[in-house]
Amino acid sequence: MSEGVHRYQYAEKDHLRMVFFIFTAKPVTIADMSEKLSTDSYKGVRDFYPEDQYIQDYITAVMRDVVERFGYVEYNASVLEPTELYAAKTGEEIVEEQTYTFVDRGDRSVTLRPEMTPTVARMIAARKRELPFPLRWYSIPNLFRYERPQKGRLREHWQLNVDLFGIEGIFAELEVLTIAHAIMTSFGLTDEQFVIKINDRRLVNQYLRDAGLDENQIHRMQKLIDRKDKMDADAFRAESQAIAGDDFVYDPQPSDDVTMVLDVFNNAGITNIEFDPAIMRGFDYYTGIVFEIYDTSAENNRALFGGGRYDDLLAIFGEEKAPAVGFGMGDVTIRDVLETYNLLPDYVSPTDLYLVVAAPEHMIQIATLANELREQGLAVALGNPDKKVGDQIKHADKLAIPTVIVVGDQELANNTFTIKVLETGEESTVVREAIASFFTPNP
Amino acid sequence: MSEGVHRYQYAEKDHLRMVFFIFTAKPVTIADMSEKLSTDSYKGVRDFYPEDQYIQDYITAVMRDVVERFGYVEYNASVLEPTELYAAKTGEEIVEEQTYTFVDRGDRSVTLRPEMTPTVARMIAARKRELPFPLRWYSIPNLFRYERPQKGRLREHWQLNVDLFGIEGIFAELEVLTIAHAIMTSFGLTDEQFVIKINDRRLVNQYLRDAGLDENQIHRMQKLIDRKDKMDADAFRAESQAIAGDDFVYDPQPSDDVTMVLDVFNNAGITNIEFDPAIMRGFDYYTGIVFEIYDTSAENNRALFGGGRYDDLLAIFGEEKAPAVGFGMGDVTIRDVLETYNLLPDYVSPTDLYLVVAAPEHMIQIATLANELREQGLAVALGNPDKKVGDQIKHADKLAIPTVIVVGDQELANNTFTIKVLETGEESTVVREAIASFFTPNP
Repeated sequence: MSEGVHRYQYAEKDHLRMVFFIFTAKPVTIADMSEKLSTDSYKGVRDFYPEDQYIQDYITAVMRDVVERFGYVEYNASVLEPTELYAAKTGEEIVEEQTYTFVDRGDRSVTLRPEMTPTVARMIAARKRELPFPLRWYSIPNLFRYERPQKGRLREHWQLNVDLFGIEGIFAELEVLTIAHAIMTSFGLTDEQFVIKINDRRLVNQYLRDAGLDENQIHRMQKLIDRKDKMDADAFRAESQAIAGDDFVYDPQPSDDVTMVLDVFNNAGITNIEFDPAIMRGFDYYTGIVFEIYDTSAENNRALFGGGRYDDLLAIFGEEKAPAVGFGMGDVTIRDVLETYNLLPDYVSPTDLYLVVAAPEHMIQIATLANELREQGLAVALGNPDKKVGDQIKHADKLAIPTVIVVGDQELANNTFTIKVLETGEESTVVREAIASFFTPNP
Repeated sequence: MSEGVHRYQYAEKDHLRMVFFIFTAKPVTIADMSEKLSTDSYKGVRDFYPEDQYIQDYITAVMRDVVERFGYVEYNASVLEPTELYAAKTGEEIVEEQTYTFVDRGDRSVTLRPEMTPTVARMIAARKRELPFPLRWYSIPNLFRYERPQKGRLREHWQLNVDLFGIEGIFAELEVLTIAHAIMTSFGLTDEQFVIKINDRRLVNQYLRDAGLDENQIHRMQKLIDRKDKMDADAFRAESQAIAGDDFVYDPQPSDDVTMVLDVFNNAGITNIEFDPAIMRGFDYYTGIVFEIYDTSAENNRALFGGGRYDDLLAIFGEEKAPAVGFGMGDVTIRDVLETYNLLPDYVSPTDLYLVVAAPEHMIQIATLANELREQGLAVALGNPDKKVGDQIKHADKLAIPTVIVVGDQELANNTFTIKVLETGEESTVVREAIASFFTPNP
């Protein structure tokens, strides 16, 4: 089969036993397929066991807490979008990246979203007249790209998207940069551990025009500048002169907007922000200030995430321009940084208390006690009445549930219970009505 | 092209302008595609504007709160799974449903998950020896099915999955039923508005065997019984006798397990639970108690969600059986019920305060004040300095932000601010340091 064309197959009632053709078109029967299956996930995506989901929830909770403090509200949409949404956007880099695209049964081409910006643009364009601009919107969508498995790169990641729509002035950039900085510090990173590098695409374009470059040279130079921080200075000079002539030197000074941003942050005591004329952020659609956040550790000096202003957002929908400033922050990159700096939290169970069933014949009474405590706000797990007391306590410990109460005949008869903190071995004996207050946080 | 085979296409760098073939194989250039795009979502999926996402978050927050009180912890996985995961499961109904299945670039068939149970089975089988059974796991995944657009049905929905693994005894069913009941009442539904119908698959199978039916007749009868509640009694009788003979009457009595469950709930004061021998839950994989929750309103009498015991979970992975009891609860169905009973909350903004910028020349000072308040725990949005004060206040109101402070020269000079509650018009004038405490909830 010619490259680029693959068989799309789906399950349908009448073709039950014939439908699952593998690429060699060998029919596979249900009998064949009910042999032992692999327990691996699809290649390149992650399973989140409870301790993994805990970390994901921690990361997204910090993100949500910060952005909501700045007045941002959450939106979302499906992972499925019509393919033309991505094809139309100016920006060959995204379109060229491998996406998961296929044709549905109605012959429509559909794509698993590789980024969120086209979706939010579509949603805004759909209600442009009714929406109360300026808008402060955020989302934490999962995004997909088709990577070759050998590359060891993930095919699915979650990315915080933060966007401020409808403000033309530099205060939009100031706000969005403040949010980016605040998220990093909320994760526990110090100003020594990361740096915000800012640039201005208009500045770059003007510099190149002033240097006498034509549109083609400017375009090639932009691509080269985007790679500058990954090259040594001599290689960059040589390649830039190959494009623009032996006299060319790339040495732009900060624009007024850039200077203003740096001053505002410095005056607020934030010094880990600087001008870097090599920051381009690749995508053609950025129209003004752009920025990238870098990890400063020697072994890890790379861009973590970035953003900027992109005022042409709604052009592809035939709508008038809407000023927009925003950034995207991926979960994997952030997780790696937090791991590097030992900033990931230890697992804490959402369950407060484990009731060990020492009297299985009174299971209903014990379940009733559990429900009472739940009504008072506690998260309570019940032990397995078929297991010994010792095994149930070990179970609570393996689940990292911090506190147990062993409930047997005596406890039920006297309505008096001993609360045991597993980590310390500390025990407190209380009456039934006082159990819940043991867990009340100190005022 | 033969039915069942469609072209799979993806974007790749070198084929930029040729790659997006529609079904007629007409090449579409980027120029064609950058005409005005549609702002519609892909057919059959939803966009969630902030007020829609608010409702989704409300629904999932109630679900999470209840299940976590019972000691359940969250897990997750990718929407993408190898197709064989679904093909192997006994249960033609699921396999026959239309899924989104396609072949990736490495010729692997991949499916957008139509349900979560195979995924959780795979994750558990992968770590069967290490996991601390019993497990109390939940997830709220989005699930996909290919529906014809004319049907007007959604192709993506979110479904709470609650599963208790590793307990063989009836207490597992008691716990899971208690959770299902608690979620409904936590949403504000009363015991008059819904009913839990329970049955036992072993009971049904035994009744049919005792009636002398062979395996083929039993299988056909199970399918008929699954439809019984949607038929009138005469039609059911006629069809059952056509399968099992003129003497056949379908009249099983509750098993001991069913009786015990009903007694426990009745003794706890919960009366909206009953035996219904017509509850089958379709899927072949349920092995014991099954249940469905019904809306009791006359115009809406239908199953909302359901579950049961399915002890053969890990068979397809070649693992020994793991007892399992659980249920799935979809977001759309729940949302419809809540709307019917007027139980959806009104939108509340996560933002506490809107600072109206009455002195744009002092924007930095106003932003600084906002940051101060954010550090004290408030969610603060800044007005657009390019807009008039009156327009900014209208903006806050449109965003349902409840409180504004108009910040002008005087306020900044005197460090005294007037807090205005928009709904009531109430105003309070306070010094800067006291602003945050205005928002502190009463103890």
